[in-house]
Amino acid sequence: MKKNPHISKNVIRRLPRYLRKLDSLQANGVASISSAELGQQLGLTHSQIRQDFSCFGEFGQQGYGYSVNTLREEISNILGMTRGFNVIVIGAGNLGHALIQNFGFERYGFRLTAAFDVDPAVIGSEIAGIRVFPSDELPDYLSRNRVDIAVLVTPQDLANTVAAVLRDGGVRAIWNFTNAEIDIAAPDMLIENIHFSDSLLTLSYYLAYKQDVKPAPKTEG
Amino acid sequence: MKKNPHISKNVIRRLPRYLRKLDSLQANGVASISSAELGQQLGLTHSQIRQDFSCFGEFGQQGYGYSVNTLREEISNILGMTRGFNVIVIGAGNLGHALIQNFGFERYGFRLTAAFDVDPAVIGSEIAGIRVFPSDELPDYLSRNRVDIAVLVTPQDLANTVAAVLRDGGVRAIWNFTNAEIDIAAPDMLIENIHFSDSLLTLSYYLAYKQDVKPAPKTEG
Repeated sequence: MKKNPHISKNVIRRLPRYLRKLDSLQANGVASISSAELGQQLGLTHSQIRQDFSCFGEFGQQGYGYSVNTLREEISNILGMTRGFNVIVIGAGNLGHALIQNFGFERYGFRLTAAFDVDPAVIGSEIAGIRVFPSDELPDYLSRNRVDIAVLVTPQDLANTVAAVLRDGGVRAIWNFTNAEIDIAAPDMLIENIHFSDSLLTLSYYLAYKQDVKPAPKTEG
Repeated sequence: MKKNPHISKNVIRRLPRYLRKLDSLQANGVASISSAELGQQLGLTHSQIRQDFSCFGEFGQQGYGYSVNTLREEISNILGMTRGFNVIVIGAGNLGHALIQNFGFERYGFRLTAAFDVDPAVIGSEIAGIRVFPSDELPDYLSRNRVDIAVLVTPQDLANTVAAVLRDGGVRAIWNFTNAEIDIAAPDMLIENIHFSDSLLTLSYYLAYKQDVKPAPKTEG
């Protein structure tokens, strides 16, 4: 499987969507699917889909459609799910707890190895089998263990301080939930932000727009 | 403030990012900023910024830059933050709890009015002043109260059942955290999905790609 450095971000960001669809097809016992059918289910054209996949080589046989299992395997491989990346979670509050307990890192091939927090009430406890260590043990932990991805779920004002500790400890990527911009010097570290507000405000924009076009039928009260 | 129906999704999705930047400028006491400076801080060209803003009218005076306060007001108005949209949260588990307690809906002008859950352990309790009602009271609640946005944080297999209740109760938009596709017939309802896995897998793709280009310096252990 070749990786082309010139593949656009839009193609990359569609891959997890394909994966979700393939998971759902697998769950429904579908063994193969044509690009036309896959496109219809995803709201994409079949030529768009063939074009996306062609960035990575050939996935299907003309006229036979794609094998759901094979395609899922290829895509999960491209997405790094077969690398066994080690993951830690920094911050075991409600959101950190929810991610550890419900996200299902191992479903995507990640190895969740530890959590860190400052709260004595959670330090030493286990969440879904994952031990919560005191935050001040983080540098030592990083010196002894390879960590590929740190999930950052601390309060906003600690984000950059913790990011610096992670960088100095050789962590290669941060999945950032803090809503703070990570602006420490860390040219070698990958950062992926989840900004909840961006998503809600986009929804709110379209709702406001609809309200202007056609007043809502129900009245307040 | 005119809204142009032909404004691209990419422009809309940049607006919350402008808002975050303006919030941070406000917090740092910055009163005005040029499009060049704003562009530099956001990694966009100044012509891109001017082009984005021109979709909504004129925000700045040539040569004077933008007033941070005014620009923030205009953008929050465009994003529907001044409409006082009513919001409820369905599912008060860890993630729902985290959203209620930490997201800060009112910061964005939303009115969080109620939460719903099936768990007797949380029903009747309050989270950050928000009452948790039993889920079976949801239809009645919706018949008596206008709800603009429902935050869906239930287990995945309940997503579509709950979405149908919300649709029938006149809810106009769903902010969907369940990782399930909402595929009930609901042509009038807006749906915005947050797929955590899409974000993490994008990060994982780039990490795998970097690994192929240049082996990581640290060894496992």
